Amino acid sequence: MLPRIRIVLVQTFHPGNIGAAARAMKTMGLAELVLVNPRAFPDDEATRLAAGAGDVVANARVVASLDEAVSDCVQVIGASARLRSLPLPHFSEPDAMADSALQNAQSAPVALVFGRERSGLTAEEIRCCTHQVSIPANPDYGILNLSQAVQILAYELHRAWRTRHQSSFIYQTPGEATPPTREQFSHFQRHLHDVMQKSGFLSQPHARTEEQLQALFTRAEPSRKELSMLRGLLSALHPDASSDRS
Amino acid sequence: MLPRIRIVLVQTFHPGNIGAAARAMKTMGLAELVLVNPRAFPDDEATRLAAGAGDVVANARVVASLDEAVSDCVQVIGASARLRSLPLPHFSEPDAMADSALQNAQSAPVALVFGRERSGLTAEEIRCCTHQVSIPANPDYGILNLSQAVQILAYELHRAWRTRHQSSFIYQTPGEATPPTREQFSHFQRHLHDVMQKSGFLSQPHARTEEQLQALFTRAEPSRKELSMLRGLLSALHPDASSDRS
Repeated sequence: MLPRIRIVLVQTFHPGNIGAAARAMKTMGLAELVLVNPRAFPDDEATRLAAGAGDVVANARVVASLDEAVSDCVQVIGASARLRSLPLPHFSEPDAMADSALQNAQSAPVALVFGRERSGLTAEEIRCCTHQVSIPANPDYGILNLSQAVQILAYELHRAWRTRHQSSFIYQTPGEATPPTREQFSHFQRHLHDVMQKSGFLSQPHARTEEQLQALFTRAEPSRKELSMLRGLLSALHPDASSDRS
Repeated sequence: MLPRIRIVLVQTFHPGNIGAAARAMKTMGLAELVLVNPRAFPDDEATRLAAGAGDVVANARVVASLDEAVSDCVQVIGASARLRSLPLPHFSEPDAMADSALQNAQSAPVALVFGRERSGLTAEEIRCCTHQVSIPANPDYGILNLSQAVQILAYELHRAWRTRHQSSFIYQTPGEATPPTREQFSHFQRHLHDVMQKSGFLSQPHARTEEQLQALFTRAEPSRKELSMLRGLLSALHPDASSDRS
């Protein structure tokens, strides 16, 4: 789905984080995982936490250095909670990073690089990067779990992709009910008016009351079926009013 | 930081997910966690995975039903990968949900409700909700781990908050170096020009070459210090050119 975007994890300590990162990737349409010198891999924990993303783990490439992982890339974005002093171009908002990455990935691979759980990336590894990105967070506690950081940046990549390919992504929506015609709706409004009047509710001079209640029902956007239910309710409450004006 | 936004987890099976969710919350400035009938809580796994968010776990309120968890809320947003047929207003994009939640939370509590790892929320629990939200994902594999879903929606809430309170959030930026004045920069440009010319590089008639290389250095936005380094390099490469025109 999102081709030529590569996720690189450097010297990951907990294999569970590798599995959770793979799952995060797959939910967001990413498939290419590269592991630089992981402490323990392959490992059952990686497979377990990958859940349905076992294929991403199985296809992960293992290399000995970050150079090897990114040598063919045109853009290498280092993700780090702690920015280092090397003045690389820096995305302070992940959505700007995502736009840039997708743009570059149209022609050649782009890598998003995550460092060690405790110490992030070394200065030498930052030198392999063309850009840095950080995830804005609570200044009192801003260090996200590694797989959570992967999830957020993968989510932003997917979001940028959705924006670019609006017609391709099919949103899950609840079943759409048929809306009523304006004529059907105005029958309901007349029915409601009659019930409000004949019940004595409108006899007290509240000038705006009917207007507001009618507007509420308009705002609720009842479906045809719901309108029919409402009219049934109105008829049950006040049999004399408008039940014949369908 | 983000007051009156409550995260509610319903019948969470794995205490580790509670801890990871608490950590996700804290990184994004959320503090209020309510657990509806958790399977195992308190639990060492919850504390372990919470990392530095032990306070969020310790302050979590445990209740027996979703009703109890949200009775004082003005908006209750059910987060679910599987939409149910009850036609609640639905946010297909989490950022729209975040804007709405922050808007409502200005005056009263708003709850974001997450269901069970395997089965989400029951129909009865959806009836406690005013809205639904789903996280757009890979149609072939769109079920995020519970704490990952919490992380993404918390991230979107924080992003919406950042947008509303632009002056309050301080972005981490790499140390800003002092930019040169236009006069200092033009000295560099003259120096570069002299080196290009005296070295014989410009003797071949490449009309655009100098223009492009000068533009590259402009684009690089060298700091004063970097400009000084560049001029030092130019002097070392071609001692005859412009070294005296500082």
